[in-house]
Amino acid sequence: MINEIPEFRKDLVGGDWILVAASRRKRPQLLKKPTFPAAKTDPGIEKCPFEDPQKSGNPFPLLWYPKPDTPASKMEDFDSWFVQVIPNKYPLLVQHTECPAVKKKDAEETIQGFGYHEVIITRGHYRTIDQMSSREIQVLLKAYKERYRTLANDPCVKYILIFHNQGEAAGASLFHPHSQLVALPVVDPDVASSLSGSLNFHKIYKKCVHCVMIKQEIKEKARIIHKNKYFVAVTPFASRVSYEIRIYPLEHASRFEDLDKDLFPFLAEALKDSLLRLNKALANPDYNFFIHTAPVGDGDTDHYHWHLEILPRGFKWAGLELGMGIEVVAVPPEEAAMHLRKQKVG
Amino acid sequence: MINEIPEFRKDLVGGDWILVAASRRKRPQLLKKPTFPAAKTDPGIEKCPFEDPQKSGNPFPLLWYPKPDTPASKMEDFDSWFVQVIPNKYPLLVQHTECPAVKKKDAEETIQGFGYHEVIITRGHYRTIDQMSSREIQVLLKAYKERYRTLANDPCVKYILIFHNQGEAAGASLFHPHSQLVALPVVDPDVASSLSGSLNFHKIYKKCVHCVMIKQEIKEKARIIHKNKYFVAVTPFASRVSYEIRIYPLEHASRFEDLDKDLFPFLAEALKDSLLRLNKALANPDYNFFIHTAPVGDGDTDHYHWHLEILPRGFKWAGLELGMGIEVVAVPPEEAAMHLRKQKVG
Repeated sequence: MINEIPEFRKDLVGGDWILVAASRRKRPQLLKKPTFPAAKTDPGIEKCPFEDPQKSGNPFPLLWYPKPDTPASKMEDFDSWFVQVIPNKYPLLVQHTECPAVKKKDAEETIQGFGYHEVIITRGHYRTIDQMSSREIQVLLKAYKERYRTLANDPCVKYILIFHNQGEAAGASLFHPHSQLVALPVVDPDVASSLSGSLNFHKIYKKCVHCVMIKQEIKEKARIIHKNKYFVAVTPFASRVSYEIRIYPLEHASRFEDLDKDLFPFLAEALKDSLLRLNKALANPDYNFFIHTAPVGDGDTDHYHWHLEILPRGFKWAGLELGMGIEVVAVPPEEAAMHLRKQKVG
Repeated sequence: MINEIPEFRKDLVGGDWILVAASRRKRPQLLKKPTFPAAKTDPGIEKCPFEDPQKSGNPFPLLWYPKPDTPASKMEDFDSWFVQVIPNKYPLLVQHTECPAVKKKDAEETIQGFGYHEVIITRGHYRTIDQMSSREIQVLLKAYKERYRTLANDPCVKYILIFHNQGEAAGASLFHPHSQLVALPVVDPDVASSLSGSLNFHKIYKKCVHCVMIKQEIKEKARIIHKNKYFVAVTPFASRVSYEIRIYPLEHASRFEDLDKDLFPFLAEALKDSLLRLNKALANPDYNFFIHTAPVGDGDTDHYHWHLEILPRGFKWAGLELGMGIEVVAVPPEEAAMHLRKQKVG
């Protein structure tokens, strides 16, 4: 799409269309404003409730890990914490003693909002993930995995989403870097749609749809921004927003929570490198990332391929996107990949 | 949901879940800021390119209608225009001489972005739809219908979306009130999903799913904010955002573009009343609205029920919504309806 005709692209997994329309960048308003505003309202370290979460009234963590270089003698000393997981003070979902009831009343179907909503805090008010060492990122990934595995034991939990909002435009209500985990009593619609797309493809072609896409990306090269022994980061063919990045394990695997710890350094490298490039190319944009993994439980989900999606927040969905469900992408993914690749990082 | 347990609600048509979580309003950040910022950057009438579109370099309109009270002698005088339709200067889709080609290359499927992108401008820089007279709104609706019917004749057009972005937060790049029309060579995914939900329901129950929902709304009364002889406006049971409003024709009809002109005053009344209440209740929030109607063509779409959706922009979708596809609604629809109903308007 280096030429000027806009192009609809079909997402092979979910079947949705996106529209790559580079012409949208010509609008005078877009030229005046930076496309990726990193609007950051930082109250400062002094007022940050995550700088010392317990001093700010939070309970002792559900889980914590020390800094990577902590000597053995101090491993039990809470002062050495690097990651800590606490319940969200303003939870979306509430504690429960039994599984939520499904209620049907005429045309209305509801489920009580039972589940878990946790916050995963890393140390350092200004220490965003791209600024962490690889070993620090690995500690964070270990916390993701551990909390996932613990909560997956609750029989009421059907899906667990781990996500990270960086910056105000990405919906982060606090400046201090933190991730979140939500354990839901329903499978979320986006994953349900990906799952059924992946299952249908597998039924027809006896192949994983994501494996086919990854093979294609590696063959074409145009959208690859990072590749190591076990992971590849690409700007997807049918990106939902400009500069979207997706990180896939190269070998087929349906569950993030089964990731072997020997592979953590490679995922940490792919994530750090992707974020560094994004920050350099777009001057520290706000962004969201989240992990899409197979639903909790024993269902037929081996066909699914887990991945991590990074969405920088330079977009504003309007009537068009809200009314159509077709996302308009102003920067073609091939152009974004070229821009990201040429950044000098590390 | 007046109590404190969050509640998942299923959208009966598409099958998606939304989460009503009133507890989210307790977050200190939400208390400090107004929830519905009507961030308006108005360059003033002098600099507005839509005040006199032709003076600003736009071509003579594709369609125009005079002000409602124009005397017969001046009906042909372009100076009397109230609505005019012009091509978008920065179109999402481009002109074509033949239908767009579908290209498949391994895992990649594309369609050229052929179609139409038009702007429907009403007269008066500060004259938002709620401030128009009922007769003026009817002229606007007539322009919607007329352009729809004209473009539906193009055999390449598969779907036509009419939408309105009011204010910067809603993605309006210009302050002056204007609607847009996009004619697409594909059926958009949201409508496709609603359509297939509606079709499935009809196959099983031999009824229109929207008719069932409307009957339920009228029986329950709790979410109704306006009702006249032919239309009803409700805050839907499974709202996608706080204070969402949906306007339905009471009698089953699959196509907006077939709306009889005798019903225009009633739709204009429902729209004006809904917007007035929204503006009064939330201090002029930015908003989007769009019309969901059956796709162009002769397909089996009689089961579908057209409607108009209004989404005020008090929300910011973050990792949770982007990662899950489950929208979190802080104000329960019943509470929003109560708030909207008690506004004194007109």
